Amino acid sequence: MARRIGVGLVGYSFMGRAHSAAWRNVVAAFDPAVVPELTVVCGRDPAGVAAAASRLGWSESTTDWRRVVERDDVGIVDVCTPGAAHAEIAIAALRAGKHVLCEKPLARSLAEAEEMAGEAARAHDRFGTHAMVGFNYRRIPAVELARRLVASGHIGELRHVRACYLQDWLVDPDAPLSWRLVRSEAGSGALGDIASHAIDLLQHLSGSVVTAVSALTTTFVSTRPVSSGVAGLASRPSRELGASRGPVSVDDAALCLVRLGGAAVGTVEASRFATGHKNALRVELNGSRASIAFDLERLNELEVYEVGTDPTAGWRRILVTEPEHPYLAGWWPPGHVLGWEHSFTHEVADLLAAIGATGSAEAHAVHPDFADGLAVQRVLDAIERSALSQSWVETGLGGAGAHLGTSTDNEEP
Amino acid sequence: MARRIGVGLVGYSFMGRAHSAAWRNVVAAFDPAVVPELTVVCGRDPAGVAAAASRLGWSESTTDWRRVVERDDVGIVDVCTPGAAHAEIAIAALRAGKHVLCEKPLARSLAEAEEMAGEAARAHDRFGTHAMVGFNYRRIPAVELARRLVASGHIGELRHVRACYLQDWLVDPDAPLSWRLVRSEAGSGALGDIASHAIDLLQHLSGSVVTAVSALTTTFVSTRPVSSGVAGLASRPSRELGASRGPVSVDDAALCLVRLGGAAVGTVEASRFATGHKNALRVELNGSRASIAFDLERLNELEVYEVGTDPTAGWRRILVTEPEHPYLAGWWPPGHVLGWEHSFTHEVADLLAAIGATGSAEAHAVHPDFADGLAVQRVLDAIERSALSQSWVETGLGGAGAHLGTSTDNEEP
Amino acid sequence: MARRIGVGLVGYSFMGRAHSAAWRNVVAAFDPAVVPELTVVCGRDPAGVAAAASRLGWSESTTDWRRVVERDDVGIVDVCTPGAAHAEIAIAALRAGKHVLCEKPLARSLAEAEEMAGEAARAHDRFGTHAMVGFNYRRIPAVELARRLVASGHIGELRHVRACYLQDWLVDPDAPLSWRLVRSEAGSGALGDIASHAIDLLQHLSGSVVTAVSALTTTFVSTRPVSSGVAGLASRPSRELGASRGPVSVDDAALCLVRLGGAAVGTVEASRFATGHKNALRVELNGSRASIAFDLERLNELEVYEVGTDPTAGWRRILVTEPEHPYLAGWWPPGHVLGWEHSFTHEVADLLAAIGATGSAEAHAVHPDFADGLAVQRVLDAIERSALSQSWVETGLGGAGAHLGTSTDNEEP
Amino acid sequence: MARRIGVGLVGYSFMGRAHSAAWRNVVAAFDPAVVPELTVVCGRDPAGVAAAASRLGWSESTTDWRRVVERDDVGIVDVCTPGAAHAEIAIAALRAGKHVLCEKPLARSLAEAEEMAGEAARAHDRFGTHAMVGFNYRRIPAVELARRLVASGHIGELRHVRACYLQDWLVDPDAPLSWRLVRSEAGSGALGDIASHAIDLLQHLSGSVVTAVSALTTTFVSTRPVSSGVAGLASRPSRELGASRGPVSVDDAALCLVRLGGAAVGTVEASRFATGHKNALRVELNGSRASIAFDLERLNELEVYEVGTDPTAGWRRILVTEPEHPYLAGWWPPGHVLGWEHSFTHEVADLLAAIGATGSAEAHAVHPDFADGLAVQRVLDAIERSALSQSWVETGLGGAGAHLGTSTDNEEP
Repeated sequence: MARRIGVGLVGYSFMGRAHSAAWRNVVAAFDPAVVPELTVVCGRDPAGVAAAASRLGWSESTTDWRRVVERDDVGIVDVCTPGAAHAEIAIAALRAGKHVLCEKPLARSLAEAEEMAGEAARAHDRFGTHAMVGFNYRRIPAVELARRLVASGHIGELRHVRACYLQDWLVDPDAPLSWRLVRSEAGSGALGDIASHAIDLLQHLSGSVVTAVSALTTTFVSTRPVSSGVAGLASRPSRELGASRGPVSVDDAALCLVRLGGAAVGTVEASRFATGHKNALRVELNGSRASIAFDLERLNELEVYEVGTDPTAGWRRILVTEPEHPYLAGWWPPGHVLGWEHSFTHEVADLLAAIGATGSAEAHAVHPDFADGLAVQRVLDAIERSALSQSWVETGLGGAGAHLGTSTDNEEP
Repeated sequence: MARRIGVGLVGYSFMGRAHSAAWRNVVAAFDPAVVPELTVVCGRDPAGVAAAASRLGWSESTTDWRRVVERDDVGIVDVCTPGAAHAEIAIAALRAGKHVLCEKPLARSLAEAEEMAGEAARAHDRFGTHAMVGFNYRRIPAVELARRLVASGHIGELRHVRACYLQDWLVDPDAPLSWRLVRSEAGSGALGDIASHAIDLLQHLSGSVVTAVSALTTTFVSTRPVSSGVAGLASRPSRELGASRGPVSVDDAALCLVRLGGAAVGTVEASRFATGHKNALRVELNGSRASIAFDLERLNELEVYEVGTDPTAGWRRILVTEPEHPYLAGWWPPGHVLGWEHSFTHEVADLLAAIGATGSAEAHAVHPDFADGLAVQRVLDAIERSALSQSWVETGLGGAGAHLGTSTDNEEP
Repeated sequence: MARRIGVGLVGYSFMGRAHSAAWRNVVAAFDPAVVPELTVVCGRDPAGVAAAASRLGWSESTTDWRRVVERDDVGIVDVCTPGAAHAEIAIAALRAGKHVLCEKPLARSLAEAEEMAGEAARAHDRFGTHAMVGFNYRRIPAVELARRLVASGHIGELRHVRACYLQDWLVDPDAPLSWRLVRSEAGSGALGDIASHAIDLLQHLSGSVVTAVSALTTTFVSTRPVSSGVAGLASRPSRELGASRGPVSVDDAALCLVRLGGAAVGTVEASRFATGHKNALRVELNGSRASIAFDLERLNELEVYEVGTDPTAGWRRILVTEPEHPYLAGWWPPGHVLGWEHSFTHEVADLLAAIGATGSAEAHAVHPDFADGLAVQRVLDAIERSALSQSWVETGLGGAGAHLGTSTDNEEP
Repeated sequence: MARRIGVGLVGYSFMGRAHSAAWRNVVAAFDPAVVPELTVVCGRDPAGVAAAASRLGWSESTTDWRRVVERDDVGIVDVCTPGAAHAEIAIAALRAGKHVLCEKPLARSLAEAEEMAGEAARAHDRFGTHAMVGFNYRRIPAVELARRLVASGHIGELRHVRACYLQDWLVDPDAPLSWRLVRSEAGSGALGDIASHAIDLLQHLSGSVVTAVSALTTTFVSTRPVSSGVAGLASRPSRELGASRGPVSVDDAALCLVRLGGAAVGTVEASRFATGHKNALRVELNGSRASIAFDLERLNELEVYEVGTDPTAGWRRILVTEPEHPYLAGWWPPGHVLGWEHSFTHEVADLLAAIGATGSAEAHAVHPDFADGLAVQRVLDAIERSALSQSWVETGLGGAGAHLGTSTDNEEP
């Protein structure tokens, strides 16, 4: 008989809906040893959260996140709130002995992130609990295939990385002022929201860390219409918005040069003003033996080029939908593509596997944990300081080898 | 309070799993007026179906499909069995006053399909029930966007259609002999399994019917290893297969020239030996004013070319993920792509909407119904007769106008 | 000291300009043992041909093609006229002991083509002269790379071919009635003009012949404005065209199913009404071990997919611009792409090499010769008869093995 | 009767061959009012340059460039030498009253470039001669179409630029030490050779200048095998190379952040170690109304995305081969693609047109002139200083408006 574990979700907007789908579908695809129960969902609006519970499959709803954290029948607290609430909820949950899954970026600031990572370490020592940060794109099959290729030495010595995360939902100067554009709520703009994904993937795929950055950030449109409530990413300009406009207090775009451990160099760019790009998280790694390229808008594909003298050398477009590919065995036959939300299903599958693991510490570990989230936050912080000081700034990551522990395995792809 | 309706699923293999995901997720994405309950799942192996019930989210399991059809708490019978069982189960369910969703192709033969369509018409008159056939690709957002464009006159007069459905899972001559390769089980091979989708899309998108065909079918590998059980599409050659081989009694590939109503002409090709293509259902329509192209391996995209004197005329790649696009409002923000299985969620959403509709017959109708399934079957039958006789064969569809009723709306895209 | 040979060009329109560029540039790129002199160009309009001579680099001009054929200082006669003049000029040149390069399709009819091929064989016996037909696309580097791969066994046993040549320059119903739309001038329409290329490539690449066809041809627009002169492909509808319209006496599109030697089957489609396609000659071959795909609109690229159990299997886009690739050594560094007209430069380079060759008959041979042109004409003829009779028609090619002699080499790519 | 002008070419290697093709073909495609004579080619090796003259179409050869500059029958001196010889030859030619076409980058250093630009200005005042620098990519039809779109306001306010020029011919650590890797010969590495093209296109397309940069440069492989002669880009590692290795004294890659006039920001990256990229000059501009993207490996295509509420908004792939497109009227019908070398033909066509122009100074002007070449050199110099100082460096370009005069026209595309 499978062991069961209760999940409490805080937040039921965009991310809350995506996480709900993951909890609802993980059993069908992965048959985990620990089976999640959708115990309770929490939100600020009583009617809204009750309706969400019914629609998204949660047994109960509440407006008090402290009630979620305290419940004995909740073993995992899933934090999908705006950034301003991450630290308080996650820390309370960790202190209550719960496993935590927290959306990214981990925090609004480096100080907050350090506090959260410290608490997670203490909780792990005390309770053996996991604290995972929601860099879900690590678990897209094409990305995980890429990581295995790099970790096995397939691309040789890394020379270049080129990463960007391009969106265009702010091109309209009358797009409303959502919480994502307010510094006290979000911490930063494109930087924390999407550059964080690009930086995490860079470090995760390359197995190296960003050691220094030279960056600029910019805000193209400085005021926007204020709507009555907080609007999510999907919201469109409403004709009902008043004449009132409020200040945009975060960056619209962030660009930087990066140095990684070893001799590798690269660029990272994030923007919400990249007209024509909807969700273009693109990462390319050029090595001495091969190159690898990924684009989130075509997330079922991975492109690989191998150096060779063969006249048929070329960029190979791999349709990453074979049963042998990562995460695919439980889904569909070859060519039956997955969608964006599947990355969350894989995320919670791995969290459940870690919770259910027995034996070695390695089997029991799950990444990205709060320490990985903190590593990204150090880069975000360095980027902000570089942009402000108009100079190169070291991230403090790396030291001797500047290689991350999470990607040094040598598993054959 | 939403009305609830019980669903009974027959078959829990590939299609059964996909339909289960649809029933499990439709409420979160579409909030239908009629809410499905996952009442019972049926399969031949008692332990297998019980495990499937638990994993896929069904309340009960059974090995007797007649028990499913008879239950008062089942309002929809969903037939996901191999083709040999379609007619018997669907007809019994229709006679019991149930709504039916039946996988494609509707039947193994034209005679069976005619019987089923006749029964569906009688049931509709008697009970007001729906009989839908599972041409799920109609409900991929890019396909529905294409249909609206064509129906609104966007492409002008149709000249060419080019449709293919290319897979390569039989290229290995030692891939096992699954039920899909046995005539008595499946009716035909690539023809019924995948050409049927291409033909349905051609007729659905163009709003015309195939009036005549010249075809060839071929079987490249005539015997295959026999495994103990019936193996699904996803199965890979197993080293445990004995030396025993059995005859492949269906086509591996089917190619045909088609004439449609009006002056339009085209080609249809289906193959399980198209090396390198995993699930390449591609349809292109060339009209006097524009062309449209779709590829299932990149199902979030639609390509459109409009005739013009503008020097920027070109093929436009539309990322069909905007809230304004068909079926998208309940999912994610722009650029957050959907997967293959979402087509089933949209299918059951529309079936539930039709069941819950009040008012006009139009609102209450849902396509593709068994009559649409029969129209495809007439083309499949003509193709088999053409291949056998090596001559042009008329499908019997069309008559005067040769335009299907289902696509003549003029809704603006 | 290089041997020199005089060239006489008949026709200075589209094809004449392209051939002129080839003769003008072949020495720089290929340094042939036999160096061409641009001796004389011939056309019907005295002023026009004189201006063309000056602009295109020819030493003299004339309006009498018989004067070209008779000249002692002309060793190669290059026939770039409309189809109606091919046979008479080519035969006269062959009888005068000249090498002949004749544009495709070889003739307006099978009878003409047979006469020309017979004359070429007699001339070869008598004078040792070459008679080449202008299927220039054989000499695009990506196409020749593909041929070598197939000939070396790379794709294994051939199963499917899929070839089309799609253009859209007749979509406008007021595009003028050029000589290409008049049966007495051109023989046929899309069939002879562009399907001929697709068929030649199919046979050339596969090393097999088309043994039987089932075809349809169609004419979408039956009358077109008559202009005063004959207009070439590049001509656009002119507002000066009178109200007078004349009949289109050729096909606008031709579609067919083909059987090749062995078990292979396929489709061929040619159209001048494929909206959005400008010059899309696409050929794909699916074999038991690999697939190959080519598209003339991206002529520097070849796509290859190899069957394998490697998780990185995928379609590889080869940028065919390396010095090791066919024809590339004399051009530019990798990634510096070639254009359409280079195929003609390669064509005349190979003709000059054959003329200058010493030693074996093999070294001395050059393809496609008039026999190859006749083989294509047999398929064109069968397609027309099939479309007329609405039945399968055998081409007469093949016989026992149905493999062409020209492609059975085993040269490693 | 057309006016004729003699051309003297200095250098007959890679660039000399490309320029020769341009001079040889410009009359056929453009019928210029001033017709070039291929008078003399100059190189250091007597036998080599004599053979080149014969093969490339030049009437005479010489080993003394001063003899070229002095000849009365030479009106245009075309400088295709390594960078070390640019200044001396170009200045001598300008002083002798010749028009000059000089390959890029203009010079090895800012000081040299300033001297050359000053001399060009004086020569223009004194003789009315032109001094053009060979940023040939401005004259690819897709690039010129892009420029016209931007200049007409099509993309609105510029926000982002993203430019890179990626090659991989140095990935092999045993690729030989060519003159391009020696600072005294080339000035810099990837920076001057290819970043210069990217920077020129950025400024040319956007109509703005780069005002400040933050950059890094790097050399991945510090020593390489020395061959007896100087080897060009196309050279491959030879097994005949001795054991001797020499120092690479230039950058292998250069990356920078850029600020342009206005609020626009961007990245520029150039590398010879970008595994898998052969000649990938890619430029993308994101504006408030549209985006534009170009890739030299597919140089016949331009991609454009226009902001809109239309559900068919998407990236449009324009095949830039229509007669209405820039430079295309003299070439082939639609879809018959051009190659890399055509950009040089267009370059000399425009130079000849300017030489032959009568009337206004505007008609007589031709860009990029040496002042444009100097503007690029200022950015290259700022990048080198930024990389050295690890700080932001201003280029000195811009001032008040920071808009270049050459792109402010409002011509409708």
